[in-house]
Amino acid sequence: MKSIIIASTSTLHEGSYLEYLLPTLQSHFKDCKSILFIPYARPSGISHEDYTRKVSEAFASINISVKGIHEFEDAGDAIKNAKGIFTGGGNTFLLVTQLYKHNVMQILAETVKNGTPYLGTSAGSNICSLSMQTTNDMPIIYPPSFQTLGLIPFNLNPHYLDPDTQSKHMGETRETRIKEFHAFNAIPVLGLREGSWLEVKGNKITLKGNLSARLFLQNETPQELKTESDLSALK
Amino acid sequence: MKSIIIASTSTLHEGSYLEYLLPTLQSHFKDCKSILFIPYARPSGISHEDYTRKVSEAFASINISVKGIHEFEDAGDAIKNAKGIFTGGGNTFLLVTQLYKHNVMQILAETVKNGTPYLGTSAGSNICSLSMQTTNDMPIIYPPSFQTLGLIPFNLNPHYLDPDTQSKHMGETRETRIKEFHAFNAIPVLGLREGSWLEVKGNKITLKGNLSARLFLQNETPQELKTESDLSALK
Repeated sequence: MKSIIIASTSTLHEGSYLEYLLPTLQSHFKDCKSILFIPYARPSGISHEDYTRKVSEAFASINISVKGIHEFEDAGDAIKNAKGIFTGGGNTFLLVTQLYKHNVMQILAETVKNGTPYLGTSAGSNICSLSMQTTNDMPIIYPPSFQTLGLIPFNLNPHYLDPDTQSKHMGETRETRIKEFHAFNAIPVLGLREGSWLEVKGNKITLKGNLSARLFLQNETPQELKTESDLSALK
Repeated sequence: MKSIIIASTSTLHEGSYLEYLLPTLQSHFKDCKSILFIPYARPSGISHEDYTRKVSEAFASINISVKGIHEFEDAGDAIKNAKGIFTGGGNTFLLVTQLYKHNVMQILAETVKNGTPYLGTSAGSNICSLSMQTTNDMPIIYPPSFQTLGLIPFNLNPHYLDPDTQSKHMGETRETRIKEFHAFNAIPVLGLREGSWLEVKGNKITLKGNLSARLFLQNETPQELKTESDLSALK
């Protein structure tokens, strides 16, 4: 049975890394003494080693040890044998490129579908979607495909940001960008604000956290979904 | 001799479409009674026809008529025969996909290098770079390559936005995203604020408009370049 936490962000303003999620993670990873960390997204270009160290420090507070996928000889075996898996944020183009390069995109999807508890934040959440096509990230590297894990039957926009009505900036709002996506794609897009996450238990998908989320359907006016909404029927 | 205007944005806050650039365009396109418009980037998913109509209205005020590339049977011939060319903003992934699909990426580069006056705004400016890898746009479609026209020997980030020090948002700043690009690429990136443009005359590249621009070099502290800076040596 799938058991997945898909978080908009790892860190809230004035909070420390993963802090707001720790109570949830303690229960999510309750059967794990150690988890596998996938640091491929490298936020700000941080090394795999430094990123894994940062994650280890956060998980130490709930008595879970962390090993980076780069420490294993075979990335596919590391995923198959993991008790729990966390993919951190950073650049989604880089993350997806690395998952394909190491031939683990499909293995990761199958492993999580078979029940290994998974946590994604930001880029690590984007890849739970059908495709990475609603990421906010810069295309710093050319991935072999935009298709991702498909753990949920729709797309996500993490770090969803409402239009700033005071802004004089003329660059596209997030809502405009998603509208452009829907000119070519019929997939629903869920704008997940910082502090929100999805809990996936088997086929049940529930919106968690204190905030509402913004749902974009092709050719429809966007709608606000309250926390605890059941998204299982969305596709 | 190359004659190119590469603008951060088509529109300033509280201005109308292309308004702030019209005096510059009047002189830039002084030998053109009509120009070719490339509407492929389709902002907000607008149709080629509607986008071309909007551009025609703006150019009418300086007595230049506009024809959209989609109105021609052969896109390559349309480019080769054009007296002047304008590529408008929108989604860079879509624009690049369409330029490759219509087999005109190379023809457009050669035509502009041979002296046909060119104007780009936003996405139409991004493609003047070596690659589209420092765009802000969403990857709504998978282009066959990220390589672009290479009319200038560096990359651009149009609509460059300074970090908002009041923001509680934890998504990456523009500067962080460019830093991630530089973890894998040595190409200089020029952050071009809204209201700035580059004027390219032959091999001379000059920063225009009232604002400074922010230059990012790999492994160096970003620097501010004053308006009228000569960027000809940048590569």
